Order: sequence, then C-alpha cells, then structure tokens
Amino acid sequence: MQVPPGGTIGILGGGQLGRMLALAAARLGLKTHIYSPEPDAPAFQVAAMHTQARFDDADALAQFARCCDVVTFEFENIPAETLARIGAVFPGAATLAVTQDRFAEKSFIASLGLKTAPFRKIDPGETAMLEAPSILKTRRLGYDGKGQVKVADAGELARAFETLKRAPCILEGFVDFAFEASVIAARAADGAFAAYDPPRNVHENHILRRSVVPSPLSPAQVEEAKAIARRIAEALDYVGVLAVELFVAKDGALLVNEIAPRVHNSGHWTIEACLTSQFEQHIRAVAGWPLGDAVRHSDAVMENLIGDEASDWRALAARGGALHLYGKAETRPGRKMGHVTWLTARESAV
Amino acid sequence: MQVPPGGTIGILGGGQLGRMLALAAARLGLKTHIYSPEPDAPAFQVAAMHTQARFDDADALAQFARCCDVVTFEFENIPAETLARIGAVFPGAATLAVTQDRFAEKSFIASLGLKTAPFRKIDPGETAMLEAPSILKTRRLGYDGKGQVKVADAGELARAFETLKRAPCILEGFVDFAFEASVIAARAADGAFAAYDPPRNVHENHILRRSVVPSPLSPAQVEEAKAIARRIAEALDYVGVLAVELFVAKDGALLVNEIAPRVHNSGHWTIEACLTSQFEQHIRAVAGWPLGDAVRHSDAVMENLIGDEASDWRALAARGGALHLYGKAETRPGRKMGHVTWLTARESAV
Repeated sequence: MQVPPGGTIGILGGGQLGRMLALAAARLGLKTHIYSPEPDAPAFQVAAMHTQARFDDADALAQFARCCDVVTFEFENIPAETLARIGAVFPGAATLAVTQDRFAEKSFIASLGLKTAPFRKIDPGETAMLEAPSILKTRRLGYDGKGQVKVADAGELARAFETLKRAPCILEGFVDFAFEASVIAARAADGAFAAYDPPRNVHENHILRRSVVPSPLSPAQVEEAKAIARRIAEALDYVGVLAVELFVAKDGALLVNEIAPRVHNSGHWTIEACLTSQFEQHIRAVAGWPLGDAVRHSDAVMENLIGDEASDWRALAARGGALHLYGKAETRPGRKMGHVTWLTARESAV
Repeated sequence: MQVPPGGTIGILGGGQLGRMLALAAARLGLKTHIYSPEPDAPAFQVAAMHTQARFDDADALAQFARCCDVVTFEFENIPAETLARIGAVFPGAATLAVTQDRFAEKSFIASLGLKTAPFRKIDPGETAMLEAPSILKTRRLGYDGKGQVKVADAGELARAFETLKRAPCILEGFVDFAFEASVIAARAADGAFAAYDPPRNVHENHILRRSVVPSPLSPAQVEEAKAIARRIAEALDYVGVLAVELFVAKDGALLVNEIAPRVHNSGHWTIEACLTSQFEQHIRAVAGWPLGDAVRHSDAVMENLIGDEASDWRALAARGGALHLYGKAETRPGRKMGHVTWLTARESAV
C-alpha cells in the first residue's frame, strides 16, 4: 500500500494533532480528509476535505472511507465499532484494543519483559491494596490525569472508586521517579524503524508543561529507551508513529508508563529541531513512504500554552521562539491552545 | 490594523507560494481564504475557504473581500482593477504599479541612488542600441526568463521585437556578474524591518535551480544588501515580505536586478533554517503582528524540483533533506513542482 502525492489521507479526529498531521501531509503534496464530531474542529481549517459527523454514524464513516486512500487517527479513544466500519486503519485496530485498556496495555508491556510500575486489575468493591501509596486509574478513556486518583489506604480506595463512578480500574504502585521521559518512534509496514531522541518531560497538574531535548538520560539509556519503543512497535506490528512514556527511576531503570499509539505532545519540538517532524514521519509511515531522517539537528525546549496562556498572542508573538496556535475557538482552563519551541544549541552537522 | 488568531487572511493567487503562506498562517492560528482562477489551485487544499473565479469577476472579488480581515497576494501580476475592487491590500497597489513595469521599477531603483544594469525604455521600431550585448525585456508580465531576448546588434534587436510581439520594452545592458544573490526582507506597518541573510542563487534556463546560504558575500556586502532592501521597502512604505534580486559584479558592486513584492523562491530555505520562515514573516507583517526573528540558525541549500524531477517521489522521499511537494496535478516542463532543503551546518546558538 502506497499513497502517491495527490492522494488523500483520512484522519479520524480534528484537534491540534490532526491539524499538525494535515499540515505535514500538505508539505508532501498529500491531501487530507478530517473526520470529527466537533462542528468547528481546528483541523478542518487546513484540510482539503472534512466530514463533521459522530463516530457512530455508519453512513458518514462509509462515505469518508471511500474518499480516502488510507485512514489514520489523531487520538486513541476511537470506538472499536468505528474502526471496524472503516476497514484498514493505521496503526491497526489490534493496537487500539491494547492501548485503550490500561490493564491490557500494562499486561502487554509486562509480557514483553519490559518494566512497569507494579499494577493489578481491580474492580469496585475490592479492597486489597498494593504497597501504599498507589494510584487508582480507570481502565478506559483517561488522559491528562483524568480518570485517576491517588490512594493511601483502603478507605481512600473506596472513595476513589466513587469518584471514578465505579468504573473498572487498575491499581498502580506509585513510582518515586527521578524524572519523566518519552520516546517518539516510527515504524513502517516493511519493518523500518526510526526513533527520535527522548525528551525529558515536565508535567504540571497532570498536563505536559515542557519537553526538553537532550534529556539527562545517558547515551546507554537513550539506546535502551529506543530499544523499548522498537520492541513494542514490533510486537504490535505497528505502522505509524507511537510514543512511549517512561518513568526514569532513581536507580536509572526505565519503566514504561503508557503507550500512545499516535503522534504525541512531547514530540512537537521535532517540527523545528529535526528535518522530519513526528507528524511528517507518521504520514510517511501510514502512506507507505520511506521513513524520513529522525536525527535531531538542534537542542530544543517545547512549552505548552495552556488555557488563557495563549490569550496575549501579541506578547507571545514578540517573545521569540516558534509559535504555534491551534485555531481553537474557545479557551478553557487546562485546554492546550498552542505551544512554543525554542532551539537552544546545535548538534553536529546533519 | 491587527488580525487576531482566528481571523482570516485573504490571498490572491493559489500556487505554491499561496500554499506555503496558508500553511504558515495556520501555524499562527489564522485562517486563509484563497482566491484563484485555477480550478485546482494547490493552495485550495490547505485553506479554510477558497474562491475559484477570474480576477475580473467583480462580484466574486467583492464577496471575497468581505470574508477576509486583510488581503495579500502571492504573485505580482494581479490586474490593478482587481486590486481596486478589493480595497486595502498589503503590500499596496502603489508598489505593484512600480514593480509590474520594468521601466518604472528600474527608474524607481535608480531614483533611490541604487545601482542597476544600464537600461532605457525602448519601443518597437527604435534601433539605437546600448553598448552591446544587451537584453530586450518586455516591460510587463515577464517571469522565469519569459519575455526577454539577448541582442547583439540592431538587426537582432528588430527580430527580438517581433519575438516579443512588439510589446513596449526596456533595453538592459548585459551584466557580466560574478554571481547572483537575493535579499528577502520584511517590513511591518510600524516601520519594523527584518532581513534574512542573502543566499547565492544559481539559475538554469532562466529558472532558479538552487539557493545557498551563506553566500560568498563578505559581511560588509551582506550589510549593504540588507540596507538596499530596507531602502526600497521604506521608499515604498512597504508592508510584507519582499525580495530584491541582485547581481554581484566582479568588482564587488551590488546591482539591483529586480524587486519581487512577495515571498520568493530564493527564500524557501528559511522554512527549515530560521525559526520564522519568510512565509510566516509575511503573514505576521500583513496581519499586523510583530515580526519574527529572521536569524538563520543553520546553513542551508535549497534545490528546486522542476518538471519531471519530482516524478520519482519515492526516491526523493528516501534521499534525505526536507522534501516539499506542491500538490500540482499536472507536470509540465519548466514547472516548479517542489523543492528540497538540506541543512548543511550550524550557526552560533540562537
């Protein structure tokens, strides 16, 4: 499968990730068709075609699939029935089945011999704790800290289940990590693999605040991180870009926290600091093109603009750095409205 | 005048320059509305809105102008009547009146005390030569070497007028230059000015083949080149990006060849080698935003893909560099289909 220039990439979801995917596809001479239930999805503004319809609208999905040479997605909580109606989607439905369920995901990671925080499945009413403190997380539909509560004892556990509306959960041991990092990597259908240097990620209120490359990881840890991403991608027979979020333990161990089967906020710096961004890399992979060069030519810092931090756009535009605003009509607290990337120094010639 | 994020930039013309302007506007959270007579204009694919209509369609122009917060253009041969129907356009109609006529343009440049090749106005039937050899150029509508003929004597001059369909012309003395260069610069409505480092440009068959930064210009010549662009921009009360094409004479003199009142092919390398590309800079200027940083963080080489050079897109995609394909449905000899930029080394930290 190979989509030539002039072909159309379908993208399920129309937020900032879909928008940046569409911009990257355009640079390669590819058209995009965005499918989103949002009436004013940011990605609609930059796509050749768009469909505004619900993810359970069988007719709209069928029509959408007919217009596209290949279909991908910008967020992982696409209903399985939606994917089934579309036919071929990259990365595949099997990957989503794993990553949409925290228990399936963690079990899969552990089955590869990779390290994670201690975890186990837990249903409402169960009271057996891990070693405290732990985090109770819904198995499905969590993002940016939503669907998780820290618990120290059985009483807190019971209350946490009420907060989470008695959803099926996993209980995870709390990891007292040195810092967080992530690997963004791409795999092509022919098995070709390319990973970006892992940034250090700083979260505030469970939302990514900042990604910095290079991270404090040693060269050996960088190689280990990339090998982890490759192991996961190969086991999933993955096609596209994926992000693997890591906890870096104080003893240097790399623990896999989460797999995001898509382009990722912690990879936005690749737009300026690499010749092939994560967005272009994903488009290349799903369109059956050769992967691009993931070498980082510059050091970089990416900062998110959250909620009303993007309101004073004039000051932001004057501040330097590469400013990205996502075209969202409405500002809401905690909503990612844009980001800024600074290049801080140069690696060797590329 | 200031267009906030979410506002709409109207762009007259829908080729690759309009397309790259639209992509840059999108990064800033701005929408674009493309106006082009072409049924399948490349920029339509990446814009929130588009109008396909002729440049003399008064109703369509009025409707277009009503939808846009500000209007600009991607090519300089927009009919004056079209501009008059739109109202405010940046850069302004006065600039176009100068740059659409080679004689007015050269006279304007000379009036600023800047150097040009020797030139004079000449009409069909006149036979007085400049010192041979010379180039006969139509005063209007020339690009990529179209509308010009080299002449060595009065007989050739007469034949050249026939080739050029007896159009009003200028006769230019042939400059035996060391190399060609260009300055891409931006001026804001408040007079702020920012110029990129001038690339060396190599033409083949009158079409740009390659731009290379840094050029062989000395630091003093670089400053002189930027001062020339500033002088021109200020005299025109210019708002937006302009390109000044230069002949670098063997004695080091900088002769102004041509002013392009728009983003320019020889500035495409700014997408990868600067934090603010020429496209973003133009959008910032016409939208009333602060200009961005024009510092070049890397050395770069930009190569055009002309005619069927873009046909083997798979090989191009595998070759490295940053590949840009313009989404043109039809390949024609001499047509610019895309370009590739390589970063070759790094300047000091930015």
